[in-house]
Amino acid sequence: MLETHEIISYVAATCTTASFLPQAILTIKTKDTEGLSLGMYSLFAIGVFCWLIYGLQIEDEAIIIANAITLILAGIILSFKVYNTFIRKQ
Amino acid sequence: MLETHEIISYVAATCTTASFLPQAILTIKTKDTEGLSLGMYSLFAIGVFCWLIYGLQIEDEAIIIANAITLILAGIILSFKVYNTFIRKQ
Repeated sequence: MLETHEIISYVAATCTTASFLPQAILTIKTKDTEGLSLGMYSLFAIGVFCWLIYGLQIEDEAIIIANAITLILAGIILSFKVYNTFIRKQ
Repeated sequence: MLETHEIISYVAATCTTASFLPQAILTIKTKDTEGLSLGMYSLFAIGVFCWLIYGLQIEDEAIIIANAITLILAGIILSFKVYNTFIRKQ
């Protein structure tokens, strides 16, 4: 049986990850990163990476899953942003 | 002395909260919520609320602080969105 606090962590992980998904998928599809700040998005990706490391350290499944999914999507978007900024000079 | 995993959780909390701040403050200043999806933003706010409850349950200071700050800002933005959508019929 799942404990109450575990259920809450999975609800939390599902909500915050699901709310991030549509915008992330749209950005990945269109490759349009003009509305994103490189600095702020890098900071976000570093933060999500640290939450993932923290989740692994305290062995918290909800934190690991939520941040692993977000990190993959954020990493793809950040790659587009870096490409658009420095290679295509958008 | 802070343990390594505690330091990582504070770095994570600082990065993800700081990356959310400028956009949140801009939205609060301009009250322009047209680019936000009510459904997705509600889901995000519910998720952040659950993370906060979870942080309180497992007594994790970084999770509590990060999500408390984000919840206040997200709550203000969501109020604007609800007002603009249902009262001003933007």
